[in-house]
Amino acid sequence: MTGFLIDGLQYANWSERIFRQMRDGGVDAVHVTIAYHETFRETVANFERWNRWFEDFPDLILRGTTGDDVRRAKETNRTAIFFGFQNPSPIEDDIGLVEILHQLGARFMQLSYNNQSLLATGCYEAEDPGLTRMGREVIGEMNRVGLVVDMSHSAERSTLEAIETSSRPIAITHANPAFWAPALRNKSDRVIRALAESGGMLGFSLYPHHLKSKSDCTLESFCEMIARTAEMVGTQCLGIGSDLCQDQPDSVVEWMRSGRWTKTVDYGEGSAASPGFPPMPDWFEDNRDFPKLEAGLRKAGFDASETAAIMGGNWLRFFDKSFGPARSEPSTLPWPEAAKTQTGAMS
Amino acid sequence: MTGFLIDGLQYANWSERIFRQMRDGGVDAVHVTIAYHETFRETVANFERWNRWFEDFPDLILRGTTGDDVRRAKETNRTAIFFGFQNPSPIEDDIGLVEILHQLGARFMQLSYNNQSLLATGCYEAEDPGLTRMGREVIGEMNRVGLVVDMSHSAERSTLEAIETSSRPIAITHANPAFWAPALRNKSDRVIRALAESGGMLGFSLYPHHLKSKSDCTLESFCEMIARTAEMVGTQCLGIGSDLCQDQPDSVVEWMRSGRWTKTVDYGEGSAASPGFPPMPDWFEDNRDFPKLEAGLRKAGFDASETAAIMGGNWLRFFDKSFGPARSEPSTLPWPEAAKTQTGAMS
Repeated sequence: MTGFLIDGLQYANWSERIFRQMRDGGVDAVHVTIAYHETFRETVANFERWNRWFEDFPDLILRGTTGDDVRRAKETNRTAIFFGFQNPSPIEDDIGLVEILHQLGARFMQLSYNNQSLLATGCYEAEDPGLTRMGREVIGEMNRVGLVVDMSHSAERSTLEAIETSSRPIAITHANPAFWAPALRNKSDRVIRALAESGGMLGFSLYPHHLKSKSDCTLESFCEMIARTAEMVGTQCLGIGSDLCQDQPDSVVEWMRSGRWTKTVDYGEGSAASPGFPPMPDWFEDNRDFPKLEAGLRKAGFDASETAAIMGGNWLRFFDKSFGPARSEPSTLPWPEAAKTQTGAMS
Repeated sequence: MTGFLIDGLQYANWSERIFRQMRDGGVDAVHVTIAYHETFRETVANFERWNRWFEDFPDLILRGTTGDDVRRAKETNRTAIFFGFQNPSPIEDDIGLVEILHQLGARFMQLSYNNQSLLATGCYEAEDPGLTRMGREVIGEMNRVGLVVDMSHSAERSTLEAIETSSRPIAITHANPAFWAPALRNKSDRVIRALAESGGMLGFSLYPHHLKSKSDCTLESFCEMIARTAEMVGTQCLGIGSDLCQDQPDSVVEWMRSGRWTKTVDYGEGSAASPGFPPMPDWFEDNRDFPKLEAGLRKAGFDASETAAIMGGNWLRFFDKSFGPARSEPSTLPWPEAAKTQTGAMS
């Protein structure tokens, strides 16, 4: 494709095979999850594993930290890898780790994953008391350094408060509208409207539990849902966040759901009858299927420019404005923008 | 002064007062110790403390990661702070932490501090079997990412082997020649010659235990020693590494010497009679005294150009060539140089 192709979330069992499939599918950038319930030190080990992959496959992937890295990836026929956490566990109880993890390359962090966290409430809790005291502090620090607030797995009130509290647009990297598939993980019209009005981004998920008819969902139904969402809030805030969990063993979905917080099995969106990863729809099985999605959007009535925006252009614009230090505050991060801000602040 | 003023090592009890004294003394850059015996996580907490200082004092200090940051500091009347460890304890037993810590800003790491480490032998051990297996691996990784090997507290054979094994020049950031003051911490002619021949750097220490006559050492004697060293190996490899430990309580020198490796008191270079920090020579008590040192060098016979080189020009040249990824290898670090290397490697 001529525009940019960016996937707003994947959690694959990464390998050279998948890196090559991303090239075959023309994926210029992907936000990859490197922590579900990991501590800081465990998350650092996951950064280390990626450092090895960058060293081993320099012709296929590169570390992404800014929007320009997506452009560099496209120019050099590689995929830019952006890091994120589905839970704030990597910062433990230490706000100083927000900047440390941003320095290591983190660009997205969910404030909660299904459960209550130190920062916010997850979508599976019975009660949602909204952002915590630490949650408000951490959002301020994330805004300062350029770490995007992601509320994909958070509950309604916490999500609305995060949109309002954050001084910079937030993201819901991987979820669908509840009007189409009323899963706990999908989002209300109110959340989607507030997100769009604040300049945030919604990444449409292809994870079967977020789809109407789950694994049997058709490409037509999925693209029609995107068209209905666009009618509601416009196209500028829409992207893809496939939630592709390719080649993962079922032990991984257990880790995602149960972490170390319970000794019993939590089936999450699954059930005792089908506890593992659900099969993907046959029209989206791996990274080589993005062109089908693009064709589906055209068929659903989006023109070439709108389709390019949804397939990656909108994410790229969001990356450009979200990953650097906040412009209005003094900053000490070692980027050119920060240097200018600092110098300006002195004179 | 018109040239650059760079101090190759300090371990102060940092405060706004000291940051202002560095401005008064015209210090453009300083390599600061942020770990003696700290684990990885403890070292990260020390990075966090510096992130706070960068945020709180943007008009006095900035994070230094490249030689250009020294130029930026001088242009904007600030001091660039470069991080280092006096012991490899921050990488624990994990070679992947070398790149992680370099990403966080580490630019120097000693392979051993007085004792045997996982990598090399310290200068207080009875035996020095040379570099360990892990030591050779870690030097290769440090060379790859641009983390400088520092052998200030290491033993003779380990030091000579590090100079030979490292594919990039190493540093002895803070020590003096043993011919002038035969302390265990000072270096033999053989080490100094090997260091100079390999393009490495020697930072002259003002810590009294490394000085002839200790706290009573005169400025004349110190500068005369530098002149004798220059006669031996030239001036291009010479700099200052003051080892200034300003405002530190004596509990800190206990931590430096004994860490957690002994339950008894190790007096190191001190003694039971004077276990604390020794008083500094009266001509070098804090960062405002660098101009006296500069004047002393001129009086000892160095011309203006040689003096400027020793006061900072040599360190700046060393910083320029040492802190980026190795040019001859593919690299994935997010710097322009790395990008060029990667792109080049693909075509």
